[in-house]
Amino acid sequence: MPIPFTTLEPSLVADPDLAAEGEKRVAWARTHMPVLARLRAELERERPLDGRRIGMCLHVEAKTAVLVETLLAGGAEIAWTGSPATTDDGVAAAMTARDRLRIYALKADDTAAHQAHIGRVLASDPDMLLDNGADLIAGTIERPASRVLAATEETTSGRLRLTGELAGRVPFPVIVINDSPIKLSFESERGIGPATVDGFFRATNTFIAGKTFAVVGFGWCGRSLARTLRAMGAVVMVVEIDPVRALEAAYEGMLVTTIEKAAARADTIITVTGRPGIVRTEHFGLLKDGAMLGNMGHFSTEIDVAGLRAMATGSRMVNTHVEEFDLPGGRRVHLLARGEMLNLTAAIGHQIEVMDLGFALQAHSMRILAQDAASYTPGYQPVPEHVNRAIAEHGLRTMSTVDLD
Amino acid sequence: MPIPFTTLEPSLVADPDLAAEGEKRVAWARTHMPVLARLRAELERERPLDGRRIGMCLHVEAKTAVLVETLLAGGAEIAWTGSPATTDDGVAAAMTARDRLRIYALKADDTAAHQAHIGRVLASDPDMLLDNGADLIAGTIERPASRVLAATEETTSGRLRLTGELAGRVPFPVIVINDSPIKLSFESERGIGPATVDGFFRATNTFIAGKTFAVVGFGWCGRSLARTLRAMGAVVMVVEIDPVRALEAAYEGMLVTTIEKAAARADTIITVTGRPGIVRTEHFGLLKDGAMLGNMGHFSTEIDVAGLRAMATGSRMVNTHVEEFDLPGGRRVHLLARGEMLNLTAAIGHQIEVMDLGFALQAHSMRILAQDAASYTPGYQPVPEHVNRAIAEHGLRTMSTVDLD
Amino acid sequence: MPIPFTTLEPSLVADPDLAAEGEKRVAWARTHMPVLARLRAELERERPLDGRRIGMCLHVEAKTAVLVETLLAGGAEIAWTGSPATTDDGVAAAMTARDRLRIYALKADDTAAHQAHIGRVLASDPDMLLDNGADLIAGTIERPASRVLAATEETTSGRLRLTGELAGRVPFPVIVINDSPIKLSFESERGIGPATVDGFFRATNTFIAGKTFAVVGFGWCGRSLARTLRAMGAVVMVVEIDPVRALEAAYEGMLVTTIEKAAARADTIITVTGRPGIVRTEHFGLLKDGAMLGNMGHFSTEIDVAGLRAMATGSRMVNTHVEEFDLPGGRRVHLLARGEMLNLTAAIGHQIEVMDLGFALQAHSMRILAQDAASYTPGYQPVPEHVNRAIAEHGLRTMSTVDLD
Amino acid sequence: MPIPFTTLEPSLVADPDLAAEGEKRVAWARTHMPVLARLRAELERERPLDGRRIGMCLHVEAKTAVLVETLLAGGAEIAWTGSPATTDDGVAAAMTARDRLRIYALKADDTAAHQAHIGRVLASDPDMLLDNGADLIAGTIERPASRVLAATEETTSGRLRLTGELAGRVPFPVIVINDSPIKLSFESERGIGPATVDGFFRATNTFIAGKTFAVVGFGWCGRSLARTLRAMGAVVMVVEIDPVRALEAAYEGMLVTTIEKAAARADTIITVTGRPGIVRTEHFGLLKDGAMLGNMGHFSTEIDVAGLRAMATGSRMVNTHVEEFDLPGGRRVHLLARGEMLNLTAAIGHQIEVMDLGFALQAHSMRILAQDAASYTPGYQPVPEHVNRAIAEHGLRTMSTVDLD
Repeated sequence: MPIPFTTLEPSLVADPDLAAEGEKRVAWARTHMPVLARLRAELERERPLDGRRIGMCLHVEAKTAVLVETLLAGGAEIAWTGSPATTDDGVAAAMTARDRLRIYALKADDTAAHQAHIGRVLASDPDMLLDNGADLIAGTIERPASRVLAATEETTSGRLRLTGELAGRVPFPVIVINDSPIKLSFESERGIGPATVDGFFRATNTFIAGKTFAVVGFGWCGRSLARTLRAMGAVVMVVEIDPVRALEAAYEGMLVTTIEKAAARADTIITVTGRPGIVRTEHFGLLKDGAMLGNMGHFSTEIDVAGLRAMATGSRMVNTHVEEFDLPGGRRVHLLARGEMLNLTAAIGHQIEVMDLGFALQAHSMRILAQDAASYTPGYQPVPEHVNRAIAEHGLRTMSTVDLD
Repeated sequence: MPIPFTTLEPSLVADPDLAAEGEKRVAWARTHMPVLARLRAELERERPLDGRRIGMCLHVEAKTAVLVETLLAGGAEIAWTGSPATTDDGVAAAMTARDRLRIYALKADDTAAHQAHIGRVLASDPDMLLDNGADLIAGTIERPASRVLAATEETTSGRLRLTGELAGRVPFPVIVINDSPIKLSFESERGIGPATVDGFFRATNTFIAGKTFAVVGFGWCGRSLARTLRAMGAVVMVVEIDPVRALEAAYEGMLVTTIEKAAARADTIITVTGRPGIVRTEHFGLLKDGAMLGNMGHFSTEIDVAGLRAMATGSRMVNTHVEEFDLPGGRRVHLLARGEMLNLTAAIGHQIEVMDLGFALQAHSMRILAQDAASYTPGYQPVPEHVNRAIAEHGLRTMSTVDLD
Repeated sequence: MPIPFTTLEPSLVADPDLAAEGEKRVAWARTHMPVLARLRAELERERPLDGRRIGMCLHVEAKTAVLVETLLAGGAEIAWTGSPATTDDGVAAAMTARDRLRIYALKADDTAAHQAHIGRVLASDPDMLLDNGADLIAGTIERPASRVLAATEETTSGRLRLTGELAGRVPFPVIVINDSPIKLSFESERGIGPATVDGFFRATNTFIAGKTFAVVGFGWCGRSLARTLRAMGAVVMVVEIDPVRALEAAYEGMLVTTIEKAAARADTIITVTGRPGIVRTEHFGLLKDGAMLGNMGHFSTEIDVAGLRAMATGSRMVNTHVEEFDLPGGRRVHLLARGEMLNLTAAIGHQIEVMDLGFALQAHSMRILAQDAASYTPGYQPVPEHVNRAIAEHGLRTMSTVDLD
Repeated sequence: MPIPFTTLEPSLVADPDLAAEGEKRVAWARTHMPVLARLRAELERERPLDGRRIGMCLHVEAKTAVLVETLLAGGAEIAWTGSPATTDDGVAAAMTARDRLRIYALKADDTAAHQAHIGRVLASDPDMLLDNGADLIAGTIERPASRVLAATEETTSGRLRLTGELAGRVPFPVIVINDSPIKLSFESERGIGPATVDGFFRATNTFIAGKTFAVVGFGWCGRSLARTLRAMGAVVMVVEIDPVRALEAAYEGMLVTTIEKAAARADTIITVTGRPGIVRTEHFGLLKDGAMLGNMGHFSTEIDVAGLRAMATGSRMVNTHVEEFDLPGGRRVHLLARGEMLNLTAAIGHQIEVMDLGFALQAHSMRILAQDAASYTPGYQPVPEHVNRAIAEHGLRTMSTVDLD
């Protein structure tokens, strides 16, 4: 017998007065998430989540709020926390007005506060989890009497935990969203380029055409970026250690070279490898005066900012998202967005429609797990093929460039 | 014998305490205006503007400030005002610290205040003018004892006055910058597309790929926009009344159609015709639910906003730069940036390098007029061919993708 | 009183038995010239050329044959010759069956034979001319009793004669087709790139993506070529002496450089400048082993083939359209299509639709001249604006990507 | 003890006098296969194929001849046959002059003759096979005393036999080349588009820009084609039954629709699905007058040509590679290249460099199998990862747009 929802700890947000502004942002996001809207209509009819309680850890911002609304529409109760850095206090305030939802999230949370929120979510005694980085999952398997039947996990880093340290220890199925071809195809291969352009324009107000960009990494994300920059008139150098990918870059009209040569020639270098320490002390000295450094990889460690700071004889913010470093010998380097993801830090994340597809995978996976968790093997599961197909079919029906009737 | 510069009315700006922030923006712009930097080095050596006093009317913001610095470096004294709506009070504050410069500009100026600033500039008794819309020129020819020997004019609308109402009445040469092939090629044909994308992303956070855009107008600006949108993965419809241009659009893979059909099918419509009343009451009823309307033409009258407001049963801001209108029958229309230029209102104008070329035309034209105004016929003059060539050559020398040594 | 058409010298062609094959090629071209088809329908109704006799000099091949059919449908009598190198003997044979047409053209004609054909055309006593290079026009003004009332001229080189050596001496109006924005926009700026790709693939069967191409000249034709190659995945170097054009190339993502650097680095160099001696002895020694040289400029003298031959220690055909030259030091150079226009020599000229627009300008200009030659000033005339508009409007109506109803 | 090579049946080719022309084509191909050239240099040093006898079945044409030369350089003896339709009799003639090679191939071979050649190859008692469609492999396992230690198989259809009817029956490892990411990435995803353009231009001489193309199938090959056509200025409709792929197409700016709508609207339809009967009787009646039909899928059955012929009231060749069919009601349909692969039938196959990579996989796989066949499990094997990497690294070293030193 689960704890009554009404007895859960009340929502904790920064400032209830921000609700009106936050509501606007949720409404705007909702307008441009038609795939979730279609799912929502189905879930309202079917109510597959009636009686389910979801423990959820995912960025508290407008697009995620639309996912939460969708799950609520399917009947779920939800206890939600986010990641402090990305919490939109206005959205958090707005969401406190939703029935069957508790939210524990402040942008100003420190690590201890965030851990306490995780504890509040686990204390809600959920029977499903929607996780980010496997923190809730790891916390759950420590708890003696967990009711959890199934979970989804948003990230690749969560999947690495599931198949690594947590392998064999998770007694319920966990569908990992990020490996879906839909995430790769749309969020990575098609979404990263435009999102980076957005961040770059906001951070620098400088032109792309006629410039030399070095893109370090030619995986799903790197190729999106390289192609977008080239389409906008840049000369693009690609640095890539995998020879098959490097050859692909060359066959797409990129100049393929080493990181040392790219560092010495590019006007702007953007890392997108997924690995730490890609641009580091030995490269900083090669940069041209005025060179810009940015990152679109998931971790903010691709550019060794600490090393840059140690090497510099001085530094200052010269624009909201640009820090200038003086290097020995008189050259200056411009670091964009502190080396964090350019689109998240200098802009406001992926364009909405891109997240619509990804969150629809979440909502649909929740639905099928709620309907029949027992039919899935415990531990890591890829998104089932029929879910990918269903979401793609929904997506096609929402586009003005598609005519399938 | 001109009035001593020191006796001119002191600078008038909104808040001197904003200088430090404004100085940063000027410094950032300066870093990305290498063509002006090259000209500045030449002007510092030659000092062709020693003893010249320039009366100047041009937007007071960071990029223009770098132009002003360049003219000051050539020896000029300058009395400067701008246009109220575009004044950056921080930049204005920062510029008060420059020698030989008076600045009269506040963002909050009303029309009367602005006219008073124009009067202050004319009262400085300039012998050269750098004008915007021919206001200073028109004011000068009213004054009995003007010393003005030569002028430049930034805009096409100024040129229309020079060859219209002012034809035959201006006793000194006026070089009109905006007709230069450099302005057309770079600011219009290559600059408008990326600038619009910047404004669109900031205003809407929505995706371009997979959407249907209607671009109304396929002139220099319209083709820049249509090409950029298509390169980013949109299906682009073009509406254009000139059949040769329309045929060009079709041969570039655009769908060419009427404004009625475009209105009924596009997700987003952007006007860029240079004419008023392009999208109007008879079209609003055709729009799809959720359609977006934006403008990149010079005037904010391409979309009949008053007509839209009259027709709507309700409206509200749903995002910083998006107003939602309820239309009879239940459809909603999203107006971007109040129908004003999307890049100026939702973003911060053209990318810096684009203005670098245009302002270099200004500075170089000032230089040749100062050296030999008498060799130019009074009235409208195009930018001399050798000036275009010189600026283009400078531009080439600043680019990492050019190797001419 | 003109000579009766039936008394004109009978047609002279290489081999009447080739008619069936030639007829097929004319039929195929006709199928893809919808603009001429629309004009033809109008001309058949109006018969504006009834009683007119046109002396015509233009390449005898399938596309031109459709132009001839169109003029015949308007009522004209025609005496036609071509240029020997481009005569399609099958098409010539097929056209002998048309009423009111005499044709004098063999591919094997030498200069004397060709001059005799020109004489035959002039001897037909035409009252209108459709000329190519102004040969008929020049011949006409030598003749005492010419009836010619008006003419069209296809080429820029003909226009140069009209405004040069023939200036003031031509007593009838001559509309020059090649300066029309339609010719520049479609035949040059959009047609040259695909036509070159066609020729290049046929000549070499080698890949474009991942290769370095140098395009020498960034005028209307050069930019078409450079853009097409870049769109197909090449890295494109541009050599251009005009700095404004060079800057445009750089802003489109081309690498701008000198001819020496381009020669040393490019896999393939293609000239398209309109000037002779562009790639010459001093450059051949810089080329890489295996470098290809091609030309898309109008004249076959852009590459100094004689100089290459003089410098080479040996040469041989290594493919139908590739000659290999051994250079001192052991490097080999591959000359494509003898340095003649790659699309004409290695392929079969422009794609059909491109010529449809250009020939429609011809037919429509003939029609308005026949209707009212007296309203045009003698000597060089540009294509009237209303003709350009009319042809563009016709063109739009023929395209599946255009919906203007 | 194998049969001495000298006792094998002498080569059988159509006409020895064609050798000189064939030799030219082989030489031209060799010039543009630098990856094979690098491998050849290694094989000449190492001689890993000394004492090996390869039974080979692969198209006898110039590019394959360079592969054969490479294997010969590694020490192999080879008995080679091809597929009759694709045999280049000139190349066959030229290759008879090579040491340690027997060739049995005539373009005019019928099925019986071809089977006899297969028998000759098997009778050479090879110890390695290089197969195409698994015919040699299937023949070998019927033979009691086969010496075969290892094989490669070029095609996907061969792989289907290996994992289907032949599964568990092949006692030696077979590396299947076509599944390599290098084949997918370069031959399919990047090679198909340009190859189709080549075939289309040769077959039709018509324009791509401004036309509506329908691409049926958006797999590796289809996306290459759709992207290339769009880059050249077409409006591209995509028909694809897999919703994830269809959504990808929509996000790349394609119009996604049903085959019925595509049939009714496209100027040209090209199938590339890998499945038979894609465009069939029920669709022919929907086509526009003058619509073109072509195929780039591996099999010539994607367009139901028999059905088209049955439905037509008449037909005729209207161009070398275009057959016109009269449909009831008066419309005409133009079938390109008999519905066979457009690039092979109307042009001369893939551009050379594309095959260079694929054949390098063959040569390198042969080398590692010869060195250590025993270390591979019998039956189907993918190309080992290290082979893909090695070939990609070789490829990078041959490109002028790559600088890794």
